[in-house]
Amino acid sequence: MSAELVLYTYFRSSAAFRVRIALNLKGLHAEHRFVHLLKDGGQQFAAKYGELNPQHLVPTLVHNGRALQQSLAIIEYLDEVFPAPPLLPGDALGRARVRALACAIACDIHPLNNLRVRKYLKMGRSDAEIRDWQAHWIALGFAALEAMLANSEHTGRFCHGDAPTLADICLIPQMANAHALEMDLSAYPTLTRIEDAALALPAFSNALPKKQPDAE
Amino acid sequence: MSAELVLYTYFRSSAAFRVRIALNLKGLHAEHRFVHLLKDGGQQFAAKYGELNPQHLVPTLVHNGRALQQSLAIIEYLDEVFPAPPLLPGDALGRARVRALACAIACDIHPLNNLRVRKYLKMGRSDAEIRDWQAHWIALGFAALEAMLANSEHTGRFCHGDAPTLADICLIPQMANAHALEMDLSAYPTLTRIEDAALALPAFSNALPKKQPDAE
Repeated sequence: MSAELVLYTYFRSSAAFRVRIALNLKGLHAEHRFVHLLKDGGQQFAAKYGELNPQHLVPTLVHNGRALQQSLAIIEYLDEVFPAPPLLPGDALGRARVRALACAIACDIHPLNNLRVRKYLKMGRSDAEIRDWQAHWIALGFAALEAMLANSEHTGRFCHGDAPTLADICLIPQMANAHALEMDLSAYPTLTRIEDAALALPAFSNALPKKQPDAE
Repeated sequence: MSAELVLYTYFRSSAAFRVRIALNLKGLHAEHRFVHLLKDGGQQFAAKYGELNPQHLVPTLVHNGRALQQSLAIIEYLDEVFPAPPLLPGDALGRARVRALACAIACDIHPLNNLRVRKYLKMGRSDAEIRDWQAHWIALGFAALEAMLANSEHTGRFCHGDAPTLADICLIPQMANAHALEMDLSAYPTLTRIEDAALALPAFSNALPKKQPDAE
């Protein structure tokens, strides 16, 4: 079993955090291999890692020897191959809603703030300016998410109903990033309520960066 | 029929371009309503549009009165509700590959370069610096995509096999953006070959920005 699933991960990566949650929710064990994004000039840039992930990003999930990239694609795959418990609703409109919530984070917040973008932005900018850049995109995205969640009859204990879905899997790592920036999240009561519900589950709390063996 | 599907679109939006291609591939007609992202301080910021799309982004697709957001979520929905022709492969590994290619564009290139980010970046930067920023992320993403496509036995006439998928639907609008920046694309022969194959199909070429009624 341990050789069947191998996760290339970095404790601070939000995208790896998502896949860790999905694996935990499915009750799947993956062997973790650690890719330190800052050591050795970035271990993700090693040629050997590039064979598994030509974007040189984490995570990569290897299943039965086949390398899969991109956290959303990996989680959809896990949901298809290991269907219980489902990470997407049973109806097409529900799936569209959950995927839209996930993409509002995974396309429109996180990619603007990840390590490679911060490094590229840094040229000529102060740490405070970088912090403001990150907080700007999180606040903009969270305001939309709060509206999407607070105004919908489909929102329950979690983003969609009373069980975790792909939307929660994306939300919780993004909340962790907001906390790391010490942002005031009082304008997003639905998001913080859902975060509390999620972190009460070991599948989410055991996937937190600080709980990982490679945490510093 | 025309009232059943309504697409809120802007000719220059890559994300709307994707949905236009998907609708065309499915042979679906949607009534187009135009949201000009620059006029009136940005028509997407109107409160009425925000009820359909709390992120104030295009596109929004309304199907039988239900508003759907986020191009990837919309296209997955269309593929589920109108299954022929399929926009995803029939096997889980194939779907994972196509979704990873799509996300490499829709998460890791396009969100860094879209209008709202360019506007935010603009503070204190020259037009040339903004252009370099856009070209940087496209070149980085295209290099990875070229490797993912050129080195795979699954690549055919299109990104995955010989029929268009979600990956091509994301690639062609991103290629259009690269052309608009007058980028040298000679390092990406597989991408340009696939672009030629796609634009030979009316479903793709009729979705081009310049073919839209709101084009300027």
